[in-house]
Amino acid sequence: MLATYAEDTIAAISTPVGEGGIGIIRLSGQRALPIAAELFAGSRKRTFLTVPNFSLQHGYIVHPETHKMLDEVLVSVMRSPYSYTREDVVEINCHGGLLALQHVLEAVLSRGARLATPGEFTKRAFLNGRIDLSQAESVIDVIRAKTDAGLQLAVQQLQGKLSTQVNHLRNQLAQLLASVEASIDFADEDIEIISHVQIDEQLQHTLVAIDQLLAGAQEGKILRDGLSLAIVGKPNVGKSSLLNVFLQEERAIVTPIPGTTRDTIEDVLNLNGIPIRLIDTAGLRDTSDEVERLGVERSRRAIQQADMVLCIFDGSAPWSHEDENFLNVVAHKEKFFILNKIDLPAQLTTDDIQAQLHESMPIFRVSLTEQIGIDALKQAIVNKVMSVPLESVAVTNVRHKQALTLAKTSLLHARQSTCAAMSPEFIALDLRDALNHLGEITGETTTDDILDRIFSTFCIGK
Amino acid sequence: MLATYAEDTIAAISTPVGEGGIGIIRLSGQRALPIAAELFAGSRKRTFLTVPNFSLQHGYIVHPETHKMLDEVLVSVMRSPYSYTREDVVEINCHGGLLALQHVLEAVLSRGARLATPGEFTKRAFLNGRIDLSQAESVIDVIRAKTDAGLQLAVQQLQGKLSTQVNHLRNQLAQLLASVEASIDFADEDIEIISHVQIDEQLQHTLVAIDQLLAGAQEGKILRDGLSLAIVGKPNVGKSSLLNVFLQEERAIVTPIPGTTRDTIEDVLNLNGIPIRLIDTAGLRDTSDEVERLGVERSRRAIQQADMVLCIFDGSAPWSHEDENFLNVVAHKEKFFILNKIDLPAQLTTDDIQAQLHESMPIFRVSLTEQIGIDALKQAIVNKVMSVPLESVAVTNVRHKQALTLAKTSLLHARQSTCAAMSPEFIALDLRDALNHLGEITGETTTDDILDRIFSTFCIGK
Repeated sequence: MLATYAEDTIAAISTPVGEGGIGIIRLSGQRALPIAAELFAGSRKRTFLTVPNFSLQHGYIVHPETHKMLDEVLVSVMRSPYSYTREDVVEINCHGGLLALQHVLEAVLSRGARLATPGEFTKRAFLNGRIDLSQAESVIDVIRAKTDAGLQLAVQQLQGKLSTQVNHLRNQLAQLLASVEASIDFADEDIEIISHVQIDEQLQHTLVAIDQLLAGAQEGKILRDGLSLAIVGKPNVGKSSLLNVFLQEERAIVTPIPGTTRDTIEDVLNLNGIPIRLIDTAGLRDTSDEVERLGVERSRRAIQQADMVLCIFDGSAPWSHEDENFLNVVAHKEKFFILNKIDLPAQLTTDDIQAQLHESMPIFRVSLTEQIGIDALKQAIVNKVMSVPLESVAVTNVRHKQALTLAKTSLLHARQSTCAAMSPEFIALDLRDALNHLGEITGETTTDDILDRIFSTFCIGK
Repeated sequence: MLATYAEDTIAAISTPVGEGGIGIIRLSGQRALPIAAELFAGSRKRTFLTVPNFSLQHGYIVHPETHKMLDEVLVSVMRSPYSYTREDVVEINCHGGLLALQHVLEAVLSRGARLATPGEFTKRAFLNGRIDLSQAESVIDVIRAKTDAGLQLAVQQLQGKLSTQVNHLRNQLAQLLASVEASIDFADEDIEIISHVQIDEQLQHTLVAIDQLLAGAQEGKILRDGLSLAIVGKPNVGKSSLLNVFLQEERAIVTPIPGTTRDTIEDVLNLNGIPIRLIDTAGLRDTSDEVERLGVERSRRAIQQADMVLCIFDGSAPWSHEDENFLNVVAHKEKFFILNKIDLPAQLTTDDIQAQLHESMPIFRVSLTEQIGIDALKQAIVNKVMSVPLESVAVTNVRHKQALTLAKTSLLHARQSTCAAMSPEFIALDLRDALNHLGEITGETTTDDILDRIFSTFCIGK
């Protein structure tokens, strides 16, 4: 893989597009320095190719053909392997705006650099072994972090927290696999290298560690992406009131997220640093009206996509067919149950609802008009999201969660084979699967396809 | 002025806001290095305060109170006077996104830096004498340049082209003033230091130079900001057709400028690298209809704000009251006259129009439906805009143009006084006025008010 990479030199604008005082063009590859040298006219007489590492050179970028001065710049040189990509890196710190940046970039490309694809600098950092895949993935999470907690998790991952834990598990499993494979080799000689009991003990040990990682995965995802919370209930039960009550109290810290427009009846509030997207759904009744039907359809989709659901019941009206109906729609979602209008004469109690649910669930009694019970409800949402302490969260990424889940499945297979005292070949097979799945997290066993998919979500210039 | 500046250290995010691989926080002032030192944990053990000038240090920004690692960074140090502002400058090259940048900025501010106002780094560069005011103004023109020609003019100005010319004129006038003032001192002794003829010669010489600068000013403004061109004419004369014909042919290089929406019937085309904003105005007839009246009102405003006007007449209909009407509205604008529909039987000729105009003006004969005469019209627009070669354009800024015009007025006064053989005191007064007006361009005689107004249009971080 490295061979094809080392051959070409890539370049891109690495600062955001827009108006600002400084813009940077980054080059990486064998020809980074020679290309920059062709364009750079420094203030001091010095051969560009021999400037010290990690130094800034003041000068001008001059087009090699038109000899036009394109911009006044500071150029920094970071030679392999002490750079972001581990290749020779040159950063041209331009003082001009977008047009000047584009001219400089064009001049760089005209000297033989290739425009970098999204995330290609980080991909090279990964391919050249400076960081592993989970660290590379965290780079874009750091850039896109929406919350302090999300940023902290991304930085932890960048520093190698997840990699360390995954590598530890892989080492354990690799040792176990070695023993199991030795058992295969010596099977005829009746020497017991490792007993089934010992294998099972070690498998259990690893499974506990994987479960711990998975335990924080939902929290990790929410802290990374925020929580989407659909509000459902029959018409007039207080869905929009809930939205308003939540938002009014938090209006000062409502997060302005682009695309959040009132007319889709969504809004974002910030609850203890977690951006929570509240989605007020239309009532879910059957209807022959085409417009209303489309609304109901959209509500169903919103509910499917939401992380959790707030189900509201009307305490001033008896249980109805409509309540029954929407419970079916949200059957497989994580839910909070809310009994509203407790300030009015009771027609529906928490016991009534409990009876309908056929299971024991906490039900929050609130009056949205009288603002009773709101804080307890909010606290419950925060507790649910933060049920795992931040320090113990290492997984924030769906891809990592899937890989861990697959590794877990393989190890459970291995335990079954072990408990059934099956031949060590079967156990070894499952262990190798588990090792591969764990290796997908750090990039040891990741296919080019998956790599391409990961880095294509990056921004250009990173 | 410098005293108050030197005391505080300013900081801001200097890269555009948005998603990118690199973001920079810039500090400038006496405490730039100590503040950075408090936050920076370098990879190498070395006292930050003594790192070499123009070097990059790799390390981490750690919050001084929470001890949380905020970002992995490259920090560059440029000590006074070898920096953008001539003060000590530190640039923190962050690898995180907006949230990480904000955290680092907050940490910097918590150690005693103040958030920079828009353009304050450049203002300091000016106040500390690194660049003059016209150079400082060109900094934002370089950043905001829309066209290659505009960029080239801004870069020329940044390099001091206008300053050199203005300073040359000021030196000439200062010498002349010295002679005139000497004449005042020696008036009683009947020694002629400089004759009125000599004064007048020198004034004429300077006036020619100012006229040359002013000659390119309109071109300069258009190359900097683009040209706005209002299309006027009575209803159905072909205004929208002209817009469409111009745009269709150039559709491939229509400039996508934000805020240009179809519904205001404006669009931008790129004619030889100049962005031309075409504004299709509503018919300008008197009307009692409230909605139409608002449309007419808007058209009048658009015409007033446009740089030039395209006046279209209908060759297939006789001269009308409506044609007369709109000519009054555009009386004081630079105009192109167009006779459309020459493919139809003629009811109105160029001679007819000429007779109405009471002056001889070129009239372009076109058929928009048959696409006759379009290229000649376009070429005429380009010629008008580019009537002065780019190299001879030095003034692009309305403020500079005004200052030059005021200086010219003062010098014309001085000439009058000279020709009337008035006492040298009067001439000296006008010369001082002219010197002051020229000094406003380079910032020698600019008030704080004007400085504030100039830099407030900058972006933060520049």
